[in-house]
Amino acid sequence: MAGEPMIELVGFDADDTLWRSQDYFDDAQAQFEAVISRYVDLADAHLHDCMLATERRNISLFGYGVKGMVLSMIETAVAITNERISGGDIHRLVALGKAILQQPVELLPGIRDAVQAVAAQHPLVLITKGDLFHQEAKVCASGLSALFHRIEIVSEKDPSTYARVLAECGVAAAAFVMVGNSLRSDIAPVLALGGYGVHVPYHRTWALEAEADLGEDVSRMRTVTEPVHIAAAIRGFSG
Amino acid sequence: MAGEPMIELVGFDADDTLWRSQDYFDDAQAQFEAVISRYVDLADAHLHDCMLATERRNISLFGYGVKGMVLSMIETAVAITNERISGGDIHRLVALGKAILQQPVELLPGIRDAVQAVAAQHPLVLITKGDLFHQEAKVCASGLSALFHRIEIVSEKDPSTYARVLAECGVAAAAFVMVGNSLRSDIAPVLALGGYGVHVPYHRTWALEAEADLGEDVSRMRTVTEPVHIAAAIRGFSG
Repeated sequence: MAGEPMIELVGFDADDTLWRSQDYFDDAQAQFEAVISRYVDLADAHLHDCMLATERRNISLFGYGVKGMVLSMIETAVAITNERISGGDIHRLVALGKAILQQPVELLPGIRDAVQAVAAQHPLVLITKGDLFHQEAKVCASGLSALFHRIEIVSEKDPSTYARVLAECGVAAAAFVMVGNSLRSDIAPVLALGGYGVHVPYHRTWALEAEADLGEDVSRMRTVTEPVHIAAAIRGFSG
Repeated sequence: MAGEPMIELVGFDADDTLWRSQDYFDDAQAQFEAVISRYVDLADAHLHDCMLATERRNISLFGYGVKGMVLSMIETAVAITNERISGGDIHRLVALGKAILQQPVELLPGIRDAVQAVAAQHPLVLITKGDLFHQEAKVCASGLSALFHRIEIVSEKDPSTYARVLAECGVAAAAFVMVGNSLRSDIAPVLALGGYGVHVPYHRTWALEAEADLGEDVSRMRTVTEPVHIAAAIRGFSG
């Protein structure tokens, strides 16, 4: 007989859960379109589909992060302009990436209080995927790192990654809640291991993150629309 | 009175210590020069100096790794050709990076036996810097990961990084030996903490890795020219 769980550890995602991230990528995408529109008619060019196809093809080589995005943008730009894109415009694409890397960290509204409220009840681990260098810089700049017992920057957020982190923390999946904006990366793999999820949707989510099959495990997930409700959602799993 | 040290943990660097790496970057650099030579007279262009200056300027944004190198190559190419470089040639530079990322892992001669010999005496930790995604893929493909108690992929190999890893392992610096090819990243920071170093020079070293001030700590360092001598060098610190 399964009793009510005793939550021993709470994980938080970072990008678009603690701080803004996708907005900057969307801004870069808009500027990318503006550059490309000087070469081709965007109505015919299917730029968004081309870019997504390039990213999908490159993800197993580049992993996640800004640098891989810029390289995929450059590949897409060369292909879609039939190599006509100028050196100056290529340099503009590199500059788009640099601008994201130089963005100050902007915490989402209410998140600092929300994380502090959960930290008062449970030990916390930050689990974020992407570029090690950029993620470390953001964690450092966020001012939140002291609230976390561990910071885990991982290359992919799949069940085996969560299983490794939980093993290193000595916590069973059934005693773990993950909080994040991505169903695919934050919620589905933790539910699959037998853990719990608090989904905090962000108004924009990268297309590759929106794909998830939650199956029947959805009973171990809650969705909250504001960070202020995260702590109560976690308490809800225990009672 | 300082007695002879009891070594409790041995760290190994990865790139150009366990497996070939710089050679691939050098090959890419040679192909980069071949592309650029179609636009400018290399005798006048100081391409190597320009590239190194770009990398030095970008390292605090990009960190280490192939993707950052390609982005720096592209910036350098656009600047040095006065934006005349073609889209096709830009794509060739991206392809140079992809080729490195797809290289199979080639262990250096004798290194498997050398690591096994040390592993028979001490617990081992792999400490490598660079791109998380690429380094994880190489560790996995190397077939050596089972010999290491921990794998640490870090963004910078400085004294504070080594201090953090040693604290997490519960080992004092005075009981730690680091083995690697880079004086700047593998040896100097560990000596500075009071630890020991075994320098295994590689025939080629990236210019940004060759800079190091070892000071008076050099008495806690040995240099060996072949991996087969690593275990004996480590034993030498205890006797």
